[in-house]
Amino acid sequence: MGQTSVTPVIDSRSSAAERLSLNTMTTQRLSFEEAVDLALRLEVPALGLWRDKVEEVGLEEAARRLREAGVRASSLCRGGFFTAADPDGVAAAVADNRRAVDEAAALGAPELVIVAGGLPDGDRDLLAARQRVADRIGDLAPYAAERGVRLALEPLHPMFVADRAVISTLEQALDLAADHDPAVVGVVVDTFHVFWDPAAEAMVARAGREGRISSYQVCDFNLPIPEGALLARGMMGDGHIDFERWTRAVTAAGYTGDVEVEIFNADIWSRDPVEVVTQMRARYDELVAPWL
Amino acid sequence: MGQTSVTPVIDSRSSAAERLSLNTMTTQRLSFEEAVDLALRLEVPALGLWRDKVEEVGLEEAARRLREAGVRASSLCRGGFFTAADPDGVAAAVADNRRAVDEAAALGAPELVIVAGGLPDGDRDLLAARQRVADRIGDLAPYAAERGVRLALEPLHPMFVADRAVISTLEQALDLAADHDPAVVGVVVDTFHVFWDPAAEAMVARAGREGRISSYQVCDFNLPIPEGALLARGMMGDGHIDFERWTRAVTAAGYTGDVEVEIFNADIWSRDPVEVVTQMRARYDELVAPWL
Repeated sequence: MGQTSVTPVIDSRSSAAERLSLNTMTTQRLSFEEAVDLALRLEVPALGLWRDKVEEVGLEEAARRLREAGVRASSLCRGGFFTAADPDGVAAAVADNRRAVDEAAALGAPELVIVAGGLPDGDRDLLAARQRVADRIGDLAPYAAERGVRLALEPLHPMFVADRAVISTLEQALDLAADHDPAVVGVVVDTFHVFWDPAAEAMVARAGREGRISSYQVCDFNLPIPEGALLARGMMGDGHIDFERWTRAVTAAGYTGDVEVEIFNADIWSRDPVEVVTQMRARYDELVAPWL
Repeated sequence: MGQTSVTPVIDSRSSAAERLSLNTMTTQRLSFEEAVDLALRLEVPALGLWRDKVEEVGLEEAARRLREAGVRASSLCRGGFFTAADPDGVAAAVADNRRAVDEAAALGAPELVIVAGGLPDGDRDLLAARQRVADRIGDLAPYAAERGVRLALEPLHPMFVADRAVISTLEQALDLAADHDPAVVGVVVDTFHVFWDPAAEAMVARAGREGRISSYQVCDFNLPIPEGALLARGMMGDGHIDFERWTRAVTAAGYTGDVEVEIFNADIWSRDPVEVVTQMRARYDELVAPWL
């Protein structure tokens, strides 16, 4: 803690409160209904949705419930996993991603988070895998454009390059996006994934200039990295990330959208979700909101 | 396996055999004496030395034993841990690094591997930590130059940015080195640390142009990442790295020095070191040597 030194202005806090989004992964043992109820109860105005939560209740019911509750869907997670090299794998990826675009449109989620996918089994050719990601984005972009959904390319921390995302840096994501209309292909700035990168601050500025910041996601980088690495994400303030620096950078880049809190963490998943989201709001108010 | 498709030429294999170096971390339960004996027995012409192994027998005895055995020290590992912000911490780091330079000189190791160090406890300011690393390199470079030892800056995989090395990319290492004579400050190309980086291949070429490749270190990137992440390094061929690509890049950049095999891996550490080094030679011959 203790990263903030300036008393926040009430107006910016109030506006910041309207930008907070709870990603359903942070409270992953809650059902879709329970997550919506908790957002209402704790005045979190938006949810970042994972597709499995939506499937639980069905797409139409999920969309209806969000409208009824007045809770926005800040994004849908996730499309992607675009690295298959065989024709069947390519066709399956394209079909699944079209469904994901349709779901985002139905839910009113403006952004579909795209996680590129890792190397196919036994394949070590990163350059070819990265080219296939570019090809699949090209396949999907017109479909997404027609439905008013933006593909939000998310670079993942390089620890995930082999198994989850061959897109490892913001620069790489922006270069991939460059062939497309900024209204159709953007990038995600996730503190966990970019904070280590010496080039990332300049790339946040570039993303802003190019009109491509689809989403700002916050969580901390905790040590030690647990086995499998997926659950190293932590509550803001518990790890090693300077949220003032990254939030200032995103703000300076002109971003005015939602701020999603997405935390994969075994300890947080084991705790009372009310307590987790209450702490999340407090940490957001202290560490992120003053710089929005 | 199966990354190679061209039959190697005998001459290049013979020359490659003279460039193989066993890093003592790969056989970490062997004493210094045992490591030298194993290198002799299995005709490995060089050792990459960690300071703790040298301390076991004392610097003079270690240097004498290497000379007597005709085994080269390809590098000494490690100096660095340069990120302390307090005057006592800075003084301690400078003093320890001077000792490391002296040890490298005494052992005939031309390269002192520098691992930058992570963030001090509770400190989240990566930019300031990176500046302190630049400052400490500036402090140490004249001392190293006088003793004929090159400071080999090693970028570490970004998973280690908070606890081990705030230098995360080859580009960053080269930018830090740029203020200094290439004979005094170089960079390490370690496959584990750089293979994910979309910019790394171009940076290997830049390192070659600038005369700064101090060391080429090989090991694989294994999944799943074990708890703590340190032991994710694997035997070449067991993981996800394309050794043809990186070895070709280093060769094209003009590198003609040693190729060190440095593997932190609990399974490998538990096996018979003779078997491990025999396998290491075979994998080196198959996956690395053809492209040297």
